[in-house]
Amino acid sequence: MNTSISSLSALDALLAELPGPDLAAEAAWAAREPQLTKPAGALGRLEEVSHWLSAWQGRHPPRLQALRARVFAGNHGVAALGVSAFPAEVTVQMVKNFEHGGAAINQLCRTFGAELKVIALELDRPTADFTAGPALTEAEFVAAFNAGMESLPDDSDLLAVGEMGIGNTTPAAAIACALFGGDAALWTGRGTGIEGAALTKKTEVVAAGVARHGASGALEILRRLGGRELVAIAGAVVAARLKRVPVLLDGYVCTAAVAPLEAARPGALDHCLVAHASAEPGHRRLAEKLGKEPLFDLGMRLGEASGAALAFGLVQAALACHTGMSTFAEAGVSDKD
Amino acid sequence: MNTSISSLSALDALLAELPGPDLAAEAAWAAREPQLTKPAGALGRLEEVSHWLSAWQGRHPPRLQALRARVFAGNHGVAALGVSAFPAEVTVQMVKNFEHGGAAINQLCRTFGAELKVIALELDRPTADFTAGPALTEAEFVAAFNAGMESLPDDSDLLAVGEMGIGNTTPAAAIACALFGGDAALWTGRGTGIEGAALTKKTEVVAAGVARHGASGALEILRRLGGRELVAIAGAVVAARLKRVPVLLDGYVCTAAVAPLEAARPGALDHCLVAHASAEPGHRRLAEKLGKEPLFDLGMRLGEASGAALAFGLVQAALACHTGMSTFAEAGVSDKD
Repeated sequence: MNTSISSLSALDALLAELPGPDLAAEAAWAAREPQLTKPAGALGRLEEVSHWLSAWQGRHPPRLQALRARVFAGNHGVAALGVSAFPAEVTVQMVKNFEHGGAAINQLCRTFGAELKVIALELDRPTADFTAGPALTEAEFVAAFNAGMESLPDDSDLLAVGEMGIGNTTPAAAIACALFGGDAALWTGRGTGIEGAALTKKTEVVAAGVARHGASGALEILRRLGGRELVAIAGAVVAARLKRVPVLLDGYVCTAAVAPLEAARPGALDHCLVAHASAEPGHRRLAEKLGKEPLFDLGMRLGEASGAALAFGLVQAALACHTGMSTFAEAGVSDKD
Repeated sequence: MNTSISSLSALDALLAELPGPDLAAEAAWAAREPQLTKPAGALGRLEEVSHWLSAWQGRHPPRLQALRARVFAGNHGVAALGVSAFPAEVTVQMVKNFEHGGAAINQLCRTFGAELKVIALELDRPTADFTAGPALTEAEFVAAFNAGMESLPDDSDLLAVGEMGIGNTTPAAAIACALFGGDAALWTGRGTGIEGAALTKKTEVVAAGVARHGASGALEILRRLGGRELVAIAGAVVAARLKRVPVLLDGYVCTAAVAPLEAARPGALDHCLVAHASAEPGHRRLAEKLGKEPLFDLGMRLGEASGAALAFGLVQAALACHTGMSTFAEAGVSDKD
């Protein structure tokens, strides 16, 4: 299977050929679900989730043996402008924390039996400051995108993606603002916890980036305003579509990273659910622009795929209900009057 | 430990003596949480959940070995008035389905490693029609309450409670309306799926019950308008408080069943979280009256503890983060600037 791109135009061509949902698996889901011993629709979005798994795995019943969490890490030129509450060296320190099993995402993956891989992307080479020029060259974009594509084994049943990168809610806000318009302040939030003058500065940085690069096409916006970990997320999400692996998106940075795919080719994110609504206020607005309703809202704003991985349990539960419940006939239960 | 009551006035006296949160466990939680490798508050409500577990188990770190789900089933005189889309024999049929492992709650408990018990309460003896008189005598109330209390072993770490009972969103609506006022229509929903004339009839039944019994005290309201499974839920929730077991409440019927405890003694439900917001519209309003924000809203409306059991995974994840994450010092991660 093709798991690399050679250029932005090759990516654009690839997006034109993405496979759709599996109609036979959808039909098999739809034949079983109404027979289960519950009022129609009573499991709410759990029903949507088991349908989505069937359609995008292309398999009925779907399978949840290989749960994959992928966290991409990158550093950002704009971090030097004072847009974050934490120093940039925290990116590499947190990668070590992931590797030693001490971060939130490690505990979440252990809880739900998921495999975690952390992919650090040239942490000693931050992106260029996007207020002065493009964040990434095309070659850097291609390398990061391919690292994302390669991170997903063929035998994967579900993917949760996320990121770590001090300063990266700034590129996220810039991408969202460039794609969907509106004032930079609408898309700029407190990130890890800034306020006052630092928040004003961050908003100015976002506005400057959008002024400089906002008129580009969607994929160019990702190159010019993004970062390596954002581009790698986009790569993993495209690879997942090609390999028939449904995707749980994490919070603001993660959703902003893939929004250019949908802007470039509507439907490119149809195999993705937004797992949770981040406390970062731009996230809910962005999810809405993408036509996605987050599964839950717990006020989380940690990144590192934590919200996406928390949804593993929900997906396991949804599948267990769809496959394990008795039908009205099997259980001898009277259907609705 | 006292796990039975002899009368409504004995229950009232018991509610006056409920233990509060464990201050030492709360302090231990508060000492650890800010040291974990994440921005303060970044895990949102997962932090609230691990705090709540500590405070109400009275133990730090909290433990999640014995997860208990308890589903109480009862039948209702008002079901004969045509308030449900399903015939009353479905209650006993669904109890068999639970016992054979074919219902949604069975799959959810299996997913998260919880033990399920189903307690059928005199299904061949429906409550009296509350539009004509009290649903339960005091002796019947006491028996059902004690069945709920006895259902919870001492060595329990977390309880999810729920119910099965054709027609039981009608008593739920009547209890909520009697306790908190407002028009009966505000509290009356579609239940398993009624509409039109049947919904009008259901609303009239709720209004008639409230007109007849609504001026009673809170615990009397539960006796006069409730049902055996609702009273048993209240019993299990009081037993949980005495045994230091935090409780996940399910949907509308479950929350209405325990609302009289809070109305009788403010704080009686402090050890309970509302796991999810049911699609039954009265539920969110009722949760708000109780000062509870549901953890998630997935449009579920099945009952049988399904929403509460779905939250088992979230609680496991919250605890894993609190206990398993490294501190800034352990991981060598720089704290906020």
